[in-house]
Amino acid sequence: MDTRIEHDLLGDAPVPAQAWYGIQTQRALENFSLSGTPINAFPELIRALAKVKAAAARANQSLGQLSDIKANAIAAACDDIVQGALHDQFVVDLIQGGAGTSTNMNANEVIANLALAKLGHGKGEYRHLHPNNDVNCSQSTNDAYPTAARLAMVEATAPLKVAIEAICLSLEVKGREFSHILKMGRTQLQDAVPMTLGQEFDAFASSLKSDIGRIDDACKELCVVNLGGTAIGTGINTHPAYGVLAVKALADITGLPVTQADNLIDATTDMGAFVTLSSVLKRLAVKLSKLSNDLRLLSSGPRTGLGEIRLPAMQPGSSIMPGKVNPVIPEAVNQVAFQVIGTDMTITMAAEAAQLQLNAMEPVIVYNLLNNCALLTRAIAMLDSRCIQGIEANEAKCEQHVSSSIGIVTALVPHIGYENATRIAGEALLSGAGVAELVRRDGLLSDDALSQILSPAAMVTPVELTGAAKAH
Amino acid sequence: MDTRIEHDLLGDAPVPAQAWYGIQTQRALENFSLSGTPINAFPELIRALAKVKAAAARANQSLGQLSDIKANAIAAACDDIVQGALHDQFVVDLIQGGAGTSTNMNANEVIANLALAKLGHGKGEYRHLHPNNDVNCSQSTNDAYPTAARLAMVEATAPLKVAIEAICLSLEVKGREFSHILKMGRTQLQDAVPMTLGQEFDAFASSLKSDIGRIDDACKELCVVNLGGTAIGTGINTHPAYGVLAVKALADITGLPVTQADNLIDATTDMGAFVTLSSVLKRLAVKLSKLSNDLRLLSSGPRTGLGEIRLPAMQPGSSIMPGKVNPVIPEAVNQVAFQVIGTDMTITMAAEAAQLQLNAMEPVIVYNLLNNCALLTRAIAMLDSRCIQGIEANEAKCEQHVSSSIGIVTALVPHIGYENATRIAGEALLSGAGVAELVRRDGLLSDDALSQILSPAAMVTPVELTGAAKAH
Amino acid sequence: MDTRIEHDLLGDAPVPAQAWYGIQTQRALENFSLSGTPINAFPELIRALAKVKAAAARANQSLGQLSDIKANAIAAACDDIVQGALHDQFVVDLIQGGAGTSTNMNANEVIANLALAKLGHGKGEYRHLHPNNDVNCSQSTNDAYPTAARLAMVEATAPLKVAIEAICLSLEVKGREFSHILKMGRTQLQDAVPMTLGQEFDAFASSLKSDIGRIDDACKELCVVNLGGTAIGTGINTHPAYGVLAVKALADITGLPVTQADNLIDATTDMGAFVTLSSVLKRLAVKLSKLSNDLRLLSSGPRTGLGEIRLPAMQPGSSIMPGKVNPVIPEAVNQVAFQVIGTDMTITMAAEAAQLQLNAMEPVIVYNLLNNCALLTRAIAMLDSRCIQGIEANEAKCEQHVSSSIGIVTALVPHIGYENATRIAGEALLSGAGVAELVRRDGLLSDDALSQILSPAAMVTPVELTGAAKAH
Amino acid sequence: MDTRIEHDLLGDAPVPAQAWYGIQTQRALENFSLSGTPINAFPELIRALAKVKAAAARANQSLGQLSDIKANAIAAACDDIVQGALHDQFVVDLIQGGAGTSTNMNANEVIANLALAKLGHGKGEYRHLHPNNDVNCSQSTNDAYPTAARLAMVEATAPLKVAIEAICLSLEVKGREFSHILKMGRTQLQDAVPMTLGQEFDAFASSLKSDIGRIDDACKELCVVNLGGTAIGTGINTHPAYGVLAVKALADITGLPVTQADNLIDATTDMGAFVTLSSVLKRLAVKLSKLSNDLRLLSSGPRTGLGEIRLPAMQPGSSIMPGKVNPVIPEAVNQVAFQVIGTDMTITMAAEAAQLQLNAMEPVIVYNLLNNCALLTRAIAMLDSRCIQGIEANEAKCEQHVSSSIGIVTALVPHIGYENATRIAGEALLSGAGVAELVRRDGLLSDDALSQILSPAAMVTPVELTGAAKAH
Repeated sequence: MDTRIEHDLLGDAPVPAQAWYGIQTQRALENFSLSGTPINAFPELIRALAKVKAAAARANQSLGQLSDIKANAIAAACDDIVQGALHDQFVVDLIQGGAGTSTNMNANEVIANLALAKLGHGKGEYRHLHPNNDVNCSQSTNDAYPTAARLAMVEATAPLKVAIEAICLSLEVKGREFSHILKMGRTQLQDAVPMTLGQEFDAFASSLKSDIGRIDDACKELCVVNLGGTAIGTGINTHPAYGVLAVKALADITGLPVTQADNLIDATTDMGAFVTLSSVLKRLAVKLSKLSNDLRLLSSGPRTGLGEIRLPAMQPGSSIMPGKVNPVIPEAVNQVAFQVIGTDMTITMAAEAAQLQLNAMEPVIVYNLLNNCALLTRAIAMLDSRCIQGIEANEAKCEQHVSSSIGIVTALVPHIGYENATRIAGEALLSGAGVAELVRRDGLLSDDALSQILSPAAMVTPVELTGAAKAH
Repeated sequence: MDTRIEHDLLGDAPVPAQAWYGIQTQRALENFSLSGTPINAFPELIRALAKVKAAAARANQSLGQLSDIKANAIAAACDDIVQGALHDQFVVDLIQGGAGTSTNMNANEVIANLALAKLGHGKGEYRHLHPNNDVNCSQSTNDAYPTAARLAMVEATAPLKVAIEAICLSLEVKGREFSHILKMGRTQLQDAVPMTLGQEFDAFASSLKSDIGRIDDACKELCVVNLGGTAIGTGINTHPAYGVLAVKALADITGLPVTQADNLIDATTDMGAFVTLSSVLKRLAVKLSKLSNDLRLLSSGPRTGLGEIRLPAMQPGSSIMPGKVNPVIPEAVNQVAFQVIGTDMTITMAAEAAQLQLNAMEPVIVYNLLNNCALLTRAIAMLDSRCIQGIEANEAKCEQHVSSSIGIVTALVPHIGYENATRIAGEALLSGAGVAELVRRDGLLSDDALSQILSPAAMVTPVELTGAAKAH
Repeated sequence: MDTRIEHDLLGDAPVPAQAWYGIQTQRALENFSLSGTPINAFPELIRALAKVKAAAARANQSLGQLSDIKANAIAAACDDIVQGALHDQFVVDLIQGGAGTSTNMNANEVIANLALAKLGHGKGEYRHLHPNNDVNCSQSTNDAYPTAARLAMVEATAPLKVAIEAICLSLEVKGREFSHILKMGRTQLQDAVPMTLGQEFDAFASSLKSDIGRIDDACKELCVVNLGGTAIGTGINTHPAYGVLAVKALADITGLPVTQADNLIDATTDMGAFVTLSSVLKRLAVKLSKLSNDLRLLSSGPRTGLGEIRLPAMQPGSSIMPGKVNPVIPEAVNQVAFQVIGTDMTITMAAEAAQLQLNAMEPVIVYNLLNNCALLTRAIAMLDSRCIQGIEANEAKCEQHVSSSIGIVTALVPHIGYENATRIAGEALLSGAGVAELVRRDGLLSDDALSQILSPAAMVTPVELTGAAKAH
Repeated sequence: MDTRIEHDLLGDAPVPAQAWYGIQTQRALENFSLSGTPINAFPELIRALAKVKAAAARANQSLGQLSDIKANAIAAACDDIVQGALHDQFVVDLIQGGAGTSTNMNANEVIANLALAKLGHGKGEYRHLHPNNDVNCSQSTNDAYPTAARLAMVEATAPLKVAIEAICLSLEVKGREFSHILKMGRTQLQDAVPMTLGQEFDAFASSLKSDIGRIDDACKELCVVNLGGTAIGTGINTHPAYGVLAVKALADITGLPVTQADNLIDATTDMGAFVTLSSVLKRLAVKLSKLSNDLRLLSSGPRTGLGEIRLPAMQPGSSIMPGKVNPVIPEAVNQVAFQVIGTDMTITMAAEAAQLQLNAMEPVIVYNLLNNCALLTRAIAMLDSRCIQGIEANEAKCEQHVSSSIGIVTALVPHIGYENATRIAGEALLSGAGVAELVRRDGLLSDDALSQILSPAAMVTPVELTGAAKAH
């Protein structure tokens, strides 16, 4: 393979001649072969890195730290990358030592070489434009990398929010479709009181929808960056005006409400916003898992389970049992949820491992947060299109459950008292008799009162009763 | 032991004659002996239960569901309990089956018996005022218990926030006290660039302080309650106006901005707010652990460690090594942090275990959240009073570190270029020579430029240099 | 309060005159008020500390490091404590800084004062017998404390194993009781193929029983101790023969196969055995949670669930729904399982926090391991006596499930082929017709073959069929 | 794209004409696009599936369930796959619903088509040899998949054990190389007592080495399989002799001590062995993280840290700080450890989610266990070759630490008593004087005694002193 020789602190080393990256990327490739997931698995991270570099270049330009020629070349290179160029050159494994230095240098080197090409120079001719002196000017990995990571996460949450909104819509459609179907609610898996199947699906939607606000809250924190802090937050090697200008440029380029943290030393080492985003993703995972569990429970059967709904059949369920169809889509969602919840612990431990002025473990945090956003987005879209939208109600089963249940006795408590109600519930359970029948037999309520109290409308929402039913 | 006989669904059973609780509490005592922590370990939970019961009574009274006599007696009993009465009668183990029914019934029974006493009746004479029919009127465990738990958590975060504010103040005092002490910052445990010890302590304060806002956010969610939803959120057995009235009464009684959830079915089963509070506590724990790690690292030695600060000696450090003093206070904080982080997983699993219309695992969530609030409050107060406030700087060590370090070479990069800087750093490391000395030897910068660039002020914050130092 | 003055590294301080502990315990009491759980919540830890101290005293005596008078007094004091004396004097909070020094000193001080009393001296007259020089002779906290903790854990697993054996016996009794009841097995909550209810309970027993072996394995590792390593494992301040003698004495006193670790420096800092014990407890918790989930699922209903078994009613299930009985016992077990699983993460993080020659976080490990052993023991005993033993089968429901299910079509696959079986399953599901009926209609199998193949015996275990049923 | 039409329970669907897999694989491809990691990321899983299918074919053949022609063709196809053929056809995402059915069917289909080719038939001509009827004969996903997964894990641990052995060897080499270098041991980051740097590295080796035995223990459990249990462990659709024969054939083919579980119903649903393997990997991760933390701490500096060792420089450490070299290799190991520890929680939650006769969440367990074996293997090899082997001691720093420390006072306790030692330690700390000097000044010990007691040999291992040093 053709190579060119580049030089760094450790000496000379060959780099593939065609590579747009340079020697530090090359060393990182040799050092780290762990997760098998390179930077370019997450294009949003590449784009964010390019935007940070462009913003820094513009700020440096306006302060005279970079010539117009260099700054323009860097900015143009960054723009190309934002548009999708050279993503295949972002090759370093996302799990890496060095607190993200290899990712930052991968970006610096690719941008430098692309800018060099724009200026008519060959790859590696860094005397004309240098990855460290110029592309990384006024920056350190310790501010550029976490700033880019935060913006990448904000970008990664956008499709996630779209997916949540879509599935909530589907759930609400089902809520309306099933709004007339009375069924038994269950608490602790025991027959409780009636509700509609529509109410059940509306509640699913309500649960997920509230997480969109939590994601937005997390993004607000992520938009507070430490750009300008350089190595440890003291802003060493920056012009006093640089930080403000760079962050302003970054807000312009990204269109996001990016601001600079009040305390840059804290912001350089603090992982609070990452912990919070991971917590929000975990909260969402918890809810998705609960939803999936409920779907699997409600569709259990077809003959020996609850059987109140039918999930669309997506594939044969068994290699041995003919005709078996399994709830494979919710099952996959459960597993994604467990992955997100487990790696929240990874993120927590990595966050806790910050030491003094830096957290060297950021790469594994960034990797898991971007991966978990993607996993959740895919899982929700799959659940929506391959399950929720095709769910059918088993009305007969729902009705049968209501008519056979003794849970409706609860509605009689305000009218016949807790003790009578308890006695009748017990007798119904033992004898198999209906609750209304026993109440009538004992003359506890008139037919009119009974029919008002036990009307579906009265049982699934508070209503004001009239006449005999009102008294008690 | 003297007993009285009470009756419930399962039949008759004896209750200690003097007990203010009743048969259902008694059964729960016999069933659950797990954590060893009774309800009364957390008085805020007792108070919150009493406030919920009082609010429900007032709403029922205004709707004619409870007579004035009963409602007034219940409200008076609740008020006594809020003031501290009969806390020793809240005896059920906090880890319990039944989704909190035993805790709710413990409250219903104590309140009923206290109200009966106020009305001149004996304990257990429930025909005059009944734990279920009257104290629990228009309620279910499934709305009363989580509503009370949420308010108890809000109350439990108040002293936690006070403790955070106090420790931040102490850290800031130290920040000012140490603002003149130059030291080396470290990234990845390697010498980086200079900062002041004051900046380091200010950053600690900044990190913790931001969590107060996160706690407030979590409390906002906790103040959205499902009171009025009764068994499954459909509000069965309530008057249509009850929910709004009860929540309004609860807001009045607590002085908190309590509102009713939009979707009560979702709110009955959803654990989002609990997951979020636990996440916030975990985030705080992560930061406290990082702070403790840093304190232990910075005070390591006294002779063979970093030794930049001295923690106050709180106890002899060793049973075998004379004169050894250990950082016992931060070590204890680390362990509290691990406890909070670990039980966040307990809470997560319990939240995920919700099924259909209820989460039967709420008790272990409530137990851990209240316990973790208390643990963190105590740990922070201990860290503040027994460690932070007594920290002293080892100025000599800090100065020696700065003067011996080659990290200051970073400040020269904009002036002598990355390659010269790298070469000089390498030579300094090998030979032990000083960086400034080598720069002077090579005639790279004038004495004036060097003294400007390497002045403490210029290294710990961005400044605009003048004259020769500006050029390059 | 009457006090006496004692002295240590930090100076003089008052100790309650009546206290059997001394100044270092007193300081620890003032420093640590976190978990609220003192050492004496776990008498096995007190006993283990006393045994370690006695063993050390005997080894020191035989090497002339302690006089016979002192050694005998110490050993006698330890023996009293093993028998239950003075447990109320072991007062330090289990979550403490100092790597267990406070626990070790609490033991040293109580033993010293009790030994002093035996020799006719007053409390605190340490010139006659000293907590450090004599009781702690040839020891450090760093070997004495983890050695005692390990032995306490071994002791704590004994009642746990008894509880597991007992519940397995109860499950096997139910296995036999239910061995004639045919029911449908379910995979992925979907109807699968028949089995007996007895087989289901036998499998529960089989699952739990295998963990006894895992506990024994963990205990084997726990019996390898670092006693004799003193401060960092180099055995500083010990006679070359001390370690072997002390461990031998400890084996004699405890009756356990205690041996000394090969590498005492590793053994002083390594937490492997604790991680393993916690993993074993977690594994058990996972199984208990699965068992509890299954019990709740199988007993769901009574009318709208699976309803194949009935759990004994332990308390009224609801404050609002008359007649409702909930599976409160398994629910409590689930929560204990979550507590154990969550705190396994606490233990993991604490284990990971070891640094260089010691792990300062051992106290939180010891606290949680002892607590989790106790929690699991209590939960299993509760589940056994208050649930498993009273479970009844709902034979009618089991039979109805089998007769209505199409899952039995699986048994026909080897005889009519996968494609025919799939077609018939589909038709049965749609039409509600029985599988056997459709096979007969299509003349796919003779009546004799069908009755052989679909006989309960043939479906729940592999059998060799004969005649027409054999062919295929 | 050319396609062929295949048929299953859900109807007809196109499959790429060239694909060796069939319709069920195709449906799974469309359903699951989650982790992005296909089966063939883990060739050991493909090989294990082929071995299970070959073993089943041989058992079926000997019982007359499969003709010799079919069995031989299947076995030959499996053998090709074991040798590496068609791995690119194992395409299903490892995170999938259906409890592994898609993975099992992917194997069944590829094997069937390859066997068909061997028999001269075209792809998809399943009337000659059927994926379900023949390749899957006498099996269910529920026994074939977990059996294969277990064997794949056993295979995946082999290179892991090799990596552990290799790094232990390197650590021991360093242990010998550094055996003469005296240094200060540290407990709780505070100066403790002397040891050699060699002892420190020997302890690292000792710690890791013990985990090989734990891996072996886990593998023993993994070799107990449920093959023969089919759908739910009752062995439905198998000949009574099949299970024993198939397991025996599997033992022959794999060369592993494979045996059949005693209770196949338990074995089908129980995840104990997976939880245990994950726990062992977590234990290893904890130790690797501790080792990495220690390496980073001991090499901290170069000027303002402990600086006792130097790690080999693998890449420039900073984009802004010239000459900075960071401990990037141990940092990457820390992150891998956190990944393994976090996903242990994923595995735990998945294991806990088993329901009744199956655990539908096995795929995410299998994915993470195989991935974690690979991650740990790579991380250990990286740490060995790119860090441990190149570590150098900073002897001067080690010596300086010993000579300046007051920790050596511990060695004097048996000779001058705890109180004298404490007083001298305090004075040394304040005045900066040496410990030996102060002892001499006070005439507490003779020069001969002091030199014996403070000799390196006497301080790093128990020795019997002579003469004056022996006294008392």
